Amino acid sequence: MKTKTKKLRLVASCPDHVGILAKVANYIAGRGANITEANQYEDKRTQTFFMRYGFELPVDGVSAEAFEAGFREVADELKMDWRMADVERRQRVVLLVSKFDHCLAYLLHRWKVGDLKIDIPCVISNHETLRELVEWYGIPYHHVTVPKEPEAKQAAFQKTADLIEANAPDTIVLARYMQIFPSWLCQKFRHRVINIHHSFLPSFIGAKPYHQADQRGVKLIGATCHYVTEDLDAGPIIEQDVVRIQHSDTIEDMMRLGKDVENTVLSRGLRHHLEDRVLVYGNKTILFT
Amino acid sequence: MKTKTKKLRLVASCPDHVGILAKVANYIAGRGANITEANQYEDKRTQTFFMRYGFELPVDGVSAEAFEAGFREVADELKMDWRMADVERRQRVVLLVSKFDHCLAYLLHRWKVGDLKIDIPCVISNHETLRELVEWYGIPYHHVTVPKEPEAKQAAFQKTADLIEANAPDTIVLARYMQIFPSWLCQKFRHRVINIHHSFLPSFIGAKPYHQADQRGVKLIGATCHYVTEDLDAGPIIEQDVVRIQHSDTIEDMMRLGKDVENTVLSRGLRHHLEDRVLVYGNKTILFT
Amino acid sequence: MKTKTKKLRLVASCPDHVGILAKVANYIAGRGANITEANQYEDKRTQTFFMRYGFELPVDGVSAEAFEAGFREVADELKMDWRMADVERRQRVVLLVSKFDHCLAYLLHRWKVGDLKIDIPCVISNHETLRELVEWYGIPYHHVTVPKEPEAKQAAFQKTADLIEANAPDTIVLARYMQIFPSWLCQKFRHRVINIHHSFLPSFIGAKPYHQADQRGVKLIGATCHYVTEDLDAGPIIEQDVVRIQHSDTIEDMMRLGKDVENTVLSRGLRHHLEDRVLVYGNKTILFT
Amino acid sequence: MKTKTKKLRLVASCPDHVGILAKVANYIAGRGANITEANQYEDKRTQTFFMRYGFELPVDGVSAEAFEAGFREVADELKMDWRMADVERRQRVVLLVSKFDHCLAYLLHRWKVGDLKIDIPCVISNHETLRELVEWYGIPYHHVTVPKEPEAKQAAFQKTADLIEANAPDTIVLARYMQIFPSWLCQKFRHRVINIHHSFLPSFIGAKPYHQADQRGVKLIGATCHYVTEDLDAGPIIEQDVVRIQHSDTIEDMMRLGKDVENTVLSRGLRHHLEDRVLVYGNKTILFT
Repeated sequence: MKTKTKKLRLVASCPDHVGILAKVANYIAGRGANITEANQYEDKRTQTFFMRYGFELPVDGVSAEAFEAGFREVADELKMDWRMADVERRQRVVLLVSKFDHCLAYLLHRWKVGDLKIDIPCVISNHETLRELVEWYGIPYHHVTVPKEPEAKQAAFQKTADLIEANAPDTIVLARYMQIFPSWLCQKFRHRVINIHHSFLPSFIGAKPYHQADQRGVKLIGATCHYVTEDLDAGPIIEQDVVRIQHSDTIEDMMRLGKDVENTVLSRGLRHHLEDRVLVYGNKTILFT
Repeated sequence: MKTKTKKLRLVASCPDHVGILAKVANYIAGRGANITEANQYEDKRTQTFFMRYGFELPVDGVSAEAFEAGFREVADELKMDWRMADVERRQRVVLLVSKFDHCLAYLLHRWKVGDLKIDIPCVISNHETLRELVEWYGIPYHHVTVPKEPEAKQAAFQKTADLIEANAPDTIVLARYMQIFPSWLCQKFRHRVINIHHSFLPSFIGAKPYHQADQRGVKLIGATCHYVTEDLDAGPIIEQDVVRIQHSDTIEDMMRLGKDVENTVLSRGLRHHLEDRVLVYGNKTILFT
Repeated sequence: MKTKTKKLRLVASCPDHVGILAKVANYIAGRGANITEANQYEDKRTQTFFMRYGFELPVDGVSAEAFEAGFREVADELKMDWRMADVERRQRVVLLVSKFDHCLAYLLHRWKVGDLKIDIPCVISNHETLRELVEWYGIPYHHVTVPKEPEAKQAAFQKTADLIEANAPDTIVLARYMQIFPSWLCQKFRHRVINIHHSFLPSFIGAKPYHQADQRGVKLIGATCHYVTEDLDAGPIIEQDVVRIQHSDTIEDMMRLGKDVENTVLSRGLRHHLEDRVLVYGNKTILFT
Repeated sequence: MKTKTKKLRLVASCPDHVGILAKVANYIAGRGANITEANQYEDKRTQTFFMRYGFELPVDGVSAEAFEAGFREVADELKMDWRMADVERRQRVVLLVSKFDHCLAYLLHRWKVGDLKIDIPCVISNHETLRELVEWYGIPYHHVTVPKEPEAKQAAFQKTADLIEANAPDTIVLARYMQIFPSWLCQKFRHRVINIHHSFLPSFIGAKPYHQADQRGVKLIGATCHYVTEDLDAGPIIEQDVVRIQHSDTIEDMMRLGKDVENTVLSRGLRHHLEDRVLVYGNKTILFT
């Protein structure tokens, strides 16, 4: 008879030395857990190890909490930066959106049919436009206008931040939210805010990237999923892709064609993030796929 | 019995008005020629028509020269910017190269097996490195050192220009030639010099694009084939493509992976150019594929 | 002042001879119409010409009907198989679907935001499952159970055909309709029924293509949009694409990843069809893109 | 000061149980070696673990031979199917080719510039055609005619097998070798013979796949790199890719376009194999990339 198990995941980085994997594997095996996935990468320049392990802990042994508490000793000895995740816990993801609805519609549909195993406590928007769509899915919709005047704008972002916090999300997705987060907001949710930018970064940063692409006459347009940082469209990149265009494609055609790329890039990037496959180092990411 | 024919191609642009195609088609049909390919595009913003026709002129009728001379009247009436090409004439293509040999080796191989129907009167390089490879193919190799001192550099470019002219090329290909053409040289061979840049432009202009890509942490790297203009890596784009990389790929890996993209992008772009499928307008290209 | 015009499109094929384009262009120019798009292709094996022209007819001249009537003479002389289309008329498209909703949800969303300029008179399904989704969009939903017993099955298909006809569609889309159309139904709507098959045809014909793909261990999975004919999954192909998978992807992962490819392949194929870019010859298609 | 190390790689599979990774990691750490890469995958259906570890053994400790000998005990206990490889040893690769030279030219060029770190003891061909190219690279060329008569054919394959064995290769690459290996030859070099097939398998098995693709009217053509087994074109797939074609592309165009895909698919597949990233199980492969 197969023992019932709890699926856990360990993601960590630490300085290079002999026996890291042995120490980690011994700790895990010592508690009767079975490692089912393993990925390890060494950045030669900084001599840093990055790792991701999936393992199954028998439910009739130590609890996940005790397991995690006990691991702290190993991690401290190895000077690890680490986190442990319950694979089957559904992450809470708050979505922010403006008027374009394709990313939102995509994520909500995939969520409804069970492809995206998350909880969506609410959607926040600086417009009323998408309320009907969101509420059809039975999800609360919060409208927070973001005025242009600096003071009122800060107040709006404070209100947005409060709403986010009140919903206790693990992750925040800017699903075509056309406002620039202030620095303090970026820092508050560091490496937890995912944006989709509608260009192949670092080309066409900022506003109206399809217009910029048209202006330059590129033959492919793209989309980039990245963590939001203080520097506009310059945070660590999680995922990118492109689609071919023709000289006869207008900016409207690009916007239409771009929707599919934006959707798949955002959903792949978000999935990688949710599965703890993305490790940030410096301004880059390791992707354990 | 099928009449013997001469294959010709007309590429043209002119201002928008009714009956352009009728006038052109009448002229062609009036000389007994059969239109086998037709492409037309209207740029709505400038109200300009762009067209490309392939047709077969019976060899027992008017000569290609007479055909072309007669067409001048039609073209003048339509205020056309045009050219007519003999489809079966092999274009003369001079290749310029520095030390990296992948694009050169690719083009020479495709030329030798008959996939690339061109004549290569010579290869010009600012290094001795690739002489053996070129001469194995029986092609003359000219070495013109390009010094750093401005005056000597200009003299070297003058010598390069003279060598190019002496070989009377239709087209010049910079197959990883790591020198920046001076403005006068760009203008001299306007829209006839094709460069391959090892990035997905407009990202990573200038030197060491793979290092720049590594620095930014992009998830795809690319290559761009474009006409050379006075503005570095900013000329009209002919073709682009990308390839996926991983976090574990070093700059050396990128350079290796990039070779295949550079080769296919350059060869597709060159082929489009040779088949008169590329029409430049402003800083963009129309691609009749 | 710019004259108001009506946008028309001519799609035709005819046997090869000199002056086809001239005759067509003269007819068009003779009625004051301006050709804005032109595509022509000659199949050398059968010596057949295929063409697609877009043109703008001034509204203060001959009517579209008179234009079309007059063209009949030209077409007869050229032994043309042809059709003329009003570019701005919205085609009527009936959707058929079973239980999987991704293609349906995609098409409905793109239709609602105006990317897909069609009318959808109704959705027909052999299940009740997707009624709520369809009705949210304000579109009638018809449920026609398809039993397994041959006689009852034929009756169900007759009822389906009647429903289709009652809605007078230009085009019928099988958006993951998991029933095989009988021959008489294929013939009734010849080259008007578009199917999306969830494999890269001709690999993995028939049921459970993702299971077949898993069994064979392919490294890419795909989707194919094609016209439905009497031969299962063997009709003329309109569009195809693929996506990379990994050894760790389960059949469920493939189904999820495949959704995006199915959606984009179906929507590109349908768009090509609606814009009269697809010309069927033999069991193949010409795509004037 | 950094200790000098020897780079080794362990590739293994074994039945599922707790502590596999701990036992392996302990053995490795116990000899002072540092694990720099780790990949592990569990096939849930067969409850089998597959793993690939890269590690660095200090040269002043146990020898690689002693290390490997010692590991046998661990492996036996775990019922492992395993191999250990010296990362820096250049594998010996024999190439077989017929008349098409693109794959051969590609591999030889990449080998010469150092991108492909292998030794090529010889090239064997059933034709004389490519001798000059191969000998320019200083590599011995063996011509073994393969007659059609069964007995003479068997003799030719025996001679081919003898030549292969005399050159003691680790790997044999069929770089467009247009002969079908007899069963005994497939078995002799099981999972060591890599073929490139010019279609996206399982579509278009056997002869003239581009003709088959033209016949079916597909919109993408592809290439497949796979291990050779007794079943024609049905061995475990290592790598695949595709390229878009147009209705105007002739079979000759497909052959030309296909060359680039064949080259990149073969070279990526071969590289994965050389780096021990490919683990065969059943008729499928695990790719630790």
